[in-house]
Amino acid sequence: MHKILVATVREEFQKEFWSPVVEKKLQEYGFELEILMRGKLSLEELPSDPAVEAVVTTWGSPRFTAAAFDKFPSLKFLGHCAGSVAGVVAPDFYEKGGRVFSANYVMATAVAEWSLLMTLLHSRNFFKSSSVKQGELMDWQEKFSMGNLRESVIGIWGFGDITRHLLKMLKPLNIGRILVSSKHASAEEIEAYGAEKAPFEDLFKYADMVHCLVGVTPDTFHGIGAKELAALKEGAAIINGGRAGLLDEDALCAQLAAKRLFAYLDVYYEEPLPTDSQLYSMPNLVMTPHNAGFPGRKEFLPFLLDEFHRAWQGEKNLCEISAKRFETMTVEQLSKKN
Amino acid sequence: MHKILVATVREEFQKEFWSPVVEKKLQEYGFELEILMRGKLSLEELPSDPAVEAVVTTWGSPRFTAAAFDKFPSLKFLGHCAGSVAGVVAPDFYEKGGRVFSANYVMATAVAEWSLLMTLLHSRNFFKSSSVKQGELMDWQEKFSMGNLRESVIGIWGFGDITRHLLKMLKPLNIGRILVSSKHASAEEIEAYGAEKAPFEDLFKYADMVHCLVGVTPDTFHGIGAKELAALKEGAAIINGGRAGLLDEDALCAQLAAKRLFAYLDVYYEEPLPTDSQLYSMPNLVMTPHNAGFPGRKEFLPFLLDEFHRAWQGEKNLCEISAKRFETMTVEQLSKKN
Repeated sequence: MHKILVATVREEFQKEFWSPVVEKKLQEYGFELEILMRGKLSLEELPSDPAVEAVVTTWGSPRFTAAAFDKFPSLKFLGHCAGSVAGVVAPDFYEKGGRVFSANYVMATAVAEWSLLMTLLHSRNFFKSSSVKQGELMDWQEKFSMGNLRESVIGIWGFGDITRHLLKMLKPLNIGRILVSSKHASAEEIEAYGAEKAPFEDLFKYADMVHCLVGVTPDTFHGIGAKELAALKEGAAIINGGRAGLLDEDALCAQLAAKRLFAYLDVYYEEPLPTDSQLYSMPNLVMTPHNAGFPGRKEFLPFLLDEFHRAWQGEKNLCEISAKRFETMTVEQLSKKN
Repeated sequence: MHKILVATVREEFQKEFWSPVVEKKLQEYGFELEILMRGKLSLEELPSDPAVEAVVTTWGSPRFTAAAFDKFPSLKFLGHCAGSVAGVVAPDFYEKGGRVFSANYVMATAVAEWSLLMTLLHSRNFFKSSSVKQGELMDWQEKFSMGNLRESVIGIWGFGDITRHLLKMLKPLNIGRILVSSKHASAEEIEAYGAEKAPFEDLFKYADMVHCLVGVTPDTFHGIGAKELAALKEGAAIINGGRAGLLDEDALCAQLAAKRLFAYLDVYYEEPLPTDSQLYSMPNLVMTPHNAGFPGRKEFLPFLLDEFHRAWQGEKNLCEISAKRFETMTVEQLSKKN
């Protein structure tokens, strides 16, 4: 019997993450799960427990530092029931031998699916001629105003879980060319997924649409600004299913207002997006309310239980965030407006 | 040198279908291509030519019967630069040994891509919470009103080129279950594409969305009517990238008006859709102006030249319409309103 502690401030945790599959896996794997829910929660407040061998965190959970091992001397694993672990793990957690897993792998599938959807919407210039609301007429004159993915160039910034899932989904569509810019992945790794490694600048030089799927770090913050956007060909699109901080919003709005570019966004500096946001007055812009990664949320906790089980069995994990990978992950604060 | 005759009434034929790739292939394969363009064109009017070994047809071309071989004694192949060949080939064309190829294979890729797009839009309940037009606010309260493809059941009616392409595209999305109803394909053929063969009724019993991708024949005309629609679960969708005639429009409108079902349509009894069509007053309906199969139109003629070349070389063809397959293809008249 392994004891797992869920440390959460989310009152809706059970509703969001619980399912019969969770119960089944707990039994099957011989796990005991305790949920500690508080309106506010810091590492200091957590009651010491020598039986706890793993913790589960989610949005708003306390940050686990080396000090966690004083409270939980048997602690081995942290499983994050969300995406980036940057907010819930401190670098010194690794120094004490802690291992970290993330449901990012599952969420990445959903974000990749969203990115695929936006790719199709843009390539087909979908909103030019379609009727999507009662009473809205189709524009039969514009029916053939669209591109062809088999002749298009898609640029992708970043080569993490989302990009990998997206590349698998794009494969059967026989995209003209796919360029991936990554500081970490080798040309061979990228080619194995049917894409080409390319310098960052080439995304903006050649692509018909650019996906922003890299983590936000001081290195990548506002990596797409006025210069990059100006380099894009007319009618090209920025598709951001990653983090708001990757993109200079003012520079993007200048391009949208001029109707030179298109954009498809799921993430914003301030969420919910204020109704007086400049984004709402822009043409050529499609926005979703930060739900790209939602489908499959019920799969998060089962996935983490699987990861813990694999780790205890000495099997290969699907989404372990090593200390090295941790460095490239999104720093939450950088995605918010100062 | 093989001589190919294009018999077309489409003045825009060159603009629509010509490309440098065509010129290259003509040279490479040693083909001579003559384009005969007339405002009106019947088989009787075509000038006799003993050198012609293949003909290319498209929308509005004359129908090729056994009599074609009197005019063109060297004729072997007909290549159709569009989808269904039902309008341009008569059954007795086969009796004289004629072989028929269609660019349907290429168009099917594009229609499958459209079907994939509609699948994603419906699964994500996209229009519930998104902003797709200047000034339209996102509905942040409804951000999580959506399904999950990995838990969804997709029904597909028909197992032709479009379905096969669509199944390849759906594979990396790990759909919960995919049920295919086909009179012609075996369970094994369908399973090889990651789906299950199912009785027609099961599509409506189990599926969260049903794709109509079968040809229209007297057998399938209005195959989806009031009974089938009533059997679908609330909130399910009909996605028609196939032919208008497959679906009883009045029965569908009754369900849409009651907001019980959703629909995604690309094809209509009358095209362009009259602005006073009842469809325009329906909620829960997304419509595109019969452009699902458009992307890649420039690939049609190169594909047919490849098919002719393969046939002359004795190689396997990708989209030969055999006399047997011909019987299952769409009869154009059935897609139009009487």
